[in-house]
Amino acid sequence: MLLKANAAALCLAASLSAVTAQTFQRLGTCPDLGCVLPPDQQDFLPGQEFDIRFEVHAPKNGSEAFNNGVPDEKFTATIAKDGHRPKSIADFFDRSEPKLEKWTFSWYEDLFAKDANTPSVVNVASKVYRRVALYEPGEYTVTLKYYNGKTTTAKWTVRALATEKKAKNVIFFIGDGMTTNMITAARLLGHKTVNGRYQSLLAVDEFPVLGHQMSHSIDTFITDSANSASALYSGHKSSVNAMGVYADSSPDTEDDPKVETIVELLHRIWGSAWGAVSTAFIADATPIALTGHTRRRSNYGILIDQALHGVSNYSWTKTDGPDAYFGGGAEQFIPGPGSFKGKDYYAEFAKKGYSVSWNKTALLAAPNNKKALGIFCKSNFPVWLDRNIFPDNLDSLDNNPSGAAGPAKDLPGLKDMTLKAIDILHERGGKNGFFLMSEAASIDKQMHALDYERALGDLLELDDTVRATIAKLKELRILDDTLIVVSADHGHGFDVFGSSDTKYADAQKDDRAKRNAVGVYENSGLSQYTQPKEGVSYGTGPNFPLNWDPRYVIAAGMGANPDHRERFGVGREPRTPASVGAGGEVYVNPADRPDGFVVNGTLPTDQTQGVHSLTDVPVYAMGPCQETFGGTYNNIDVFFKMASCLGLGQPRNRTRADAGHGGTKPKS
Amino acid sequence: MLLKANAAALCLAASLSAVTAQTFQRLGTCPDLGCVLPPDQQDFLPGQEFDIRFEVHAPKNGSEAFNNGVPDEKFTATIAKDGHRPKSIADFFDRSEPKLEKWTFSWYEDLFAKDANTPSVVNVASKVYRRVALYEPGEYTVTLKYYNGKTTTAKWTVRALATEKKAKNVIFFIGDGMTTNMITAARLLGHKTVNGRYQSLLAVDEFPVLGHQMSHSIDTFITDSANSASALYSGHKSSVNAMGVYADSSPDTEDDPKVETIVELLHRIWGSAWGAVSTAFIADATPIALTGHTRRRSNYGILIDQALHGVSNYSWTKTDGPDAYFGGGAEQFIPGPGSFKGKDYYAEFAKKGYSVSWNKTALLAAPNNKKALGIFCKSNFPVWLDRNIFPDNLDSLDNNPSGAAGPAKDLPGLKDMTLKAIDILHERGGKNGFFLMSEAASIDKQMHALDYERALGDLLELDDTVRATIAKLKELRILDDTLIVVSADHGHGFDVFGSSDTKYADAQKDDRAKRNAVGVYENSGLSQYTQPKEGVSYGTGPNFPLNWDPRYVIAAGMGANPDHRERFGVGREPRTPASVGAGGEVYVNPADRPDGFVVNGTLPTDQTQGVHSLTDVPVYAMGPCQETFGGTYNNIDVFFKMASCLGLGQPRNRTRADAGHGGTKPKS
Repeated sequence: MLLKANAAALCLAASLSAVTAQTFQRLGTCPDLGCVLPPDQQDFLPGQEFDIRFEVHAPKNGSEAFNNGVPDEKFTATIAKDGHRPKSIADFFDRSEPKLEKWTFSWYEDLFAKDANTPSVVNVASKVYRRVALYEPGEYTVTLKYYNGKTTTAKWTVRALATEKKAKNVIFFIGDGMTTNMITAARLLGHKTVNGRYQSLLAVDEFPVLGHQMSHSIDTFITDSANSASALYSGHKSSVNAMGVYADSSPDTEDDPKVETIVELLHRIWGSAWGAVSTAFIADATPIALTGHTRRRSNYGILIDQALHGVSNYSWTKTDGPDAYFGGGAEQFIPGPGSFKGKDYYAEFAKKGYSVSWNKTALLAAPNNKKALGIFCKSNFPVWLDRNIFPDNLDSLDNNPSGAAGPAKDLPGLKDMTLKAIDILHERGGKNGFFLMSEAASIDKQMHALDYERALGDLLELDDTVRATIAKLKELRILDDTLIVVSADHGHGFDVFGSSDTKYADAQKDDRAKRNAVGVYENSGLSQYTQPKEGVSYGTGPNFPLNWDPRYVIAAGMGANPDHRERFGVGREPRTPASVGAGGEVYVNPADRPDGFVVNGTLPTDQTQGVHSLTDVPVYAMGPCQETFGGTYNNIDVFFKMASCLGLGQPRNRTRADAGHGGTKPKS
Repeated sequence: MLLKANAAALCLAASLSAVTAQTFQRLGTCPDLGCVLPPDQQDFLPGQEFDIRFEVHAPKNGSEAFNNGVPDEKFTATIAKDGHRPKSIADFFDRSEPKLEKWTFSWYEDLFAKDANTPSVVNVASKVYRRVALYEPGEYTVTLKYYNGKTTTAKWTVRALATEKKAKNVIFFIGDGMTTNMITAARLLGHKTVNGRYQSLLAVDEFPVLGHQMSHSIDTFITDSANSASALYSGHKSSVNAMGVYADSSPDTEDDPKVETIVELLHRIWGSAWGAVSTAFIADATPIALTGHTRRRSNYGILIDQALHGVSNYSWTKTDGPDAYFGGGAEQFIPGPGSFKGKDYYAEFAKKGYSVSWNKTALLAAPNNKKALGIFCKSNFPVWLDRNIFPDNLDSLDNNPSGAAGPAKDLPGLKDMTLKAIDILHERGGKNGFFLMSEAASIDKQMHALDYERALGDLLELDDTVRATIAKLKELRILDDTLIVVSADHGHGFDVFGSSDTKYADAQKDDRAKRNAVGVYENSGLSQYTQPKEGVSYGTGPNFPLNWDPRYVIAAGMGANPDHRERFGVGREPRTPASVGAGGEVYVNPADRPDGFVVNGTLPTDQTQGVHSLTDVPVYAMGPCQETFGGTYNNIDVFFKMASCLGLGQPRNRTRADAGHGGTKPKS
């Protein structure tokens, strides 16, 4: 018996939408034909600036076809604080009525429609109100009326005021794609056990407070790094590929309704210094979402311009640019096709007073009292494992940050960049403090490539950076003034499930026999990564493996794979598990792990890599307000906890000028 | 460049053991030829009783061959508290010298040796000292001297005294195999979101304190449920398949050195009531490890006898049997091959004053002032999904707990059993309080079978039980006196990575095309499990899916698989993903998910199921001492935190008689 029908179910059924497809959505936050952006059930910091957009949709065809595809241009919208009468949006925010916008977009209702190439076409009428804010905590109701009787309602919550600054500084470490499972695996590789007792621990293991955050997007339960970063930085969830905005349906990817981010707030209210450090290209989602406002994360050039100059197409909070900005991604700085309007962004930054570094030597020598840009390679950093264990792999790269041919040389690591950023931000922030985001980007990037050891190497680099940061803050006597948060933006479905005897695997002839090299339960044994091996020393210090290539290696896997081969154990070269064949179909890459056994994938056959997963990710906290980070919460709450600790919930349109020279003295 | 040799590495290499195999081990806790059990770096509660075993190994052949296979029978052993002179074990503990034991065992050094059937044979000389305890906190050094100059040392730590009882009661929920990833997935199925905001949450989401515990065994990084339960209950890690003992190498699986468990301590010191509830057979590892002392978890019959009568082959703490004992596993109670010595254990329990229930009606009617046994089926419970959504699946079972033919009828759920146990324990414990372990066993069992929905159904049942327990404790006015801990014993490498359009998948003809039904990132969309569907109602109340069989289902996977087919979405019948073919080789079960696509496994080809994984598992805590459960720690620390909160760290050999009638009044 599958289904028990009853009367209650039949009543509930009446409220069902005609649209049953969830995989494809007309617009993620817009289940009705009228859309309010920000949509229902969104939270705001008091005084946080944002845009409001209304859309009325008229599908011309498809399962939702309505009104012959003519959208209602006479829609009206109001807002009411609880207990007050509704006012028009224009009146409430003292804005003039904006002009009507119109456009058309199309989408596929499901995979059958996509295969048949039968898109549903939607005509839209829309208005947008720019740069408003709500200062009074409480509940607000926004009502959109359209089509002579239809309404779409959005309830918004303005959280409590938080005007007191409890932490002078915040350092936010993000292990991109980092899960508890990966942290457990990295501990196994980098730290030795004796009879079930670890002899040393990860730095994050020693954090006093642990929480879990839910990483889902507003439009899907599987997020990407753009909108998850945006949720962490702004308290507003967005859609896949979007950051600092609620994604609308308009053709312009740069006109979507914006929300103010933590560095924009912090600069506006307290005049604090801020910085971003990443082992990704610096225009990548996690670092760039601190200042980026776009529906399309791949608009890299303009996003770098926004980081320096702020949003240019509309009036918006400026941050005056980061005080420290270190990462990869020279493509957006070297004048050419990758840079905004083809301009030289090294020169643009230099014009605004930045020191510019292209290698570690220059980075360490950069003055701490000047703003600093450091771009150390094209694209992403080579990973820790290649920089430290297989440095020969770097020689063949063509990633010189200057634009000259050849490899990037004298690369700093995440620790070098982070500690230098702290020096600069501490000096430049002065009594106004600072905010630093430091990202270990390739945990994610190498998990995508199923290159488990390379991912875990970068996780250990992150942990080593956290450890060094704590020591640095102690040395600067600001540890007690600094909230340190270590978290992630989403996960990958990774776990270790045993060990593999590489010697035995390599001696077997066929795929099935090779699988028998895997030991499970008691045959997993203990980690050999922490056992010294004669003749092997990497000089990478404590908290890293003594041997990356033992006979018995971890056997690990992902919940989702493209077609690939497995031969557990570190590869000398970075991994490309699958490659594209005829008709865009993806198959096992014949050059990857040729000694391994074939594993057919569980992902669509156009996917060359692993994909993100659902799991909640851990949050480690230490310092002022640490006690607020325990338990389980939404990713947007990470923003509200940090913002509350930084006193960013303000009752009026406060700027640092209000506080006199350089802001008020923080409490701590 | 893979390896950089240097002088330091060469020096380190001198300390390497000749044994390079880790997958197979001579004896997990015994890296040298001399073994001290408990081994190096173990922790003790003051006053916790335990046995000590010494073994001296003489391998006859293989890479470790020594002394022509003749073990040193003249070995000596001492113990010294830090700052004191060493004494012989017999003198220190005031025991007479035990007689020497001798035996032989064999093992395979690696898979090559196993394939060639060339075992290494080891002769052993051994002594065991029974039922000792250390009362003074501090560090102790045990030294075994053998072979005229060899020594094996064990450092033991007796933790601080904890004589004050801060919690009257402890309820310990174990979701067997439950990870954060599964909790996230269960939330998605059972709780609705609107624009990225959950409209309701899991009960565990609302716990104030969250921690992570490391689940590894003493002998391997991948644990099983026996020794992980044992670590949680005794503070002593053990080896795979062992519980309540440190595994030795002797032929007798029931003579291994024991450690006292939390219910043994609690009964001895405070005379508290205790109970166990499980949806597994009650002799399964997680429930039975509360009282079990064996190296072989599959000795089910004797383990049930131990639960009732205590250890019978040696003098040991008795618990007088559980006050409430509810689960499956009638095989060990019906007189016959599954029961200890063929006896009728229903009758054995009844003789000691137990009420005996075989169904929910009898359970609910059982008197609260009597000890209660409830065995509701043979083997494991049918899972929540079959009990509640597909009840027809129960009709064909032959699992009547009475031993009569036919199915078990009128089964209680985990919630029924747990709430009834609380009633009984509260009444019987009185002012001495109680300890209850309640296990959702089939989260693990169904993840083994790759039956994701059935596993998540049982996780939601656990969460529903936690919610009801909190309400029950409030009603009994003992919520503030009760520490509630919700955790797991280990994980499985599970995660959700997208959605699958079952309609599209089923319409595709070949395996690769079926994979294209999977939507990732924005195409994952939102959960349809929480959307009402016309004509569908299960009557399972809030916090469970409104539709278990939507068109768009979760796409999920494991890090490790046997060969199997995937057709995402719930199956009407419980799953058997792989089956054994010729020569013991395991292949896709042709009857399982015939409409799915084939996924070849990554596990050894004799494995029919998924396996446990490495990941740290979450710990949720609420009530007295909750603040001690934050951060990251070892699974043994869960025991020490609970034991400390229960005042079980005592400076002398305390029994409840010491405290007068029924023990002292607890503080709270």
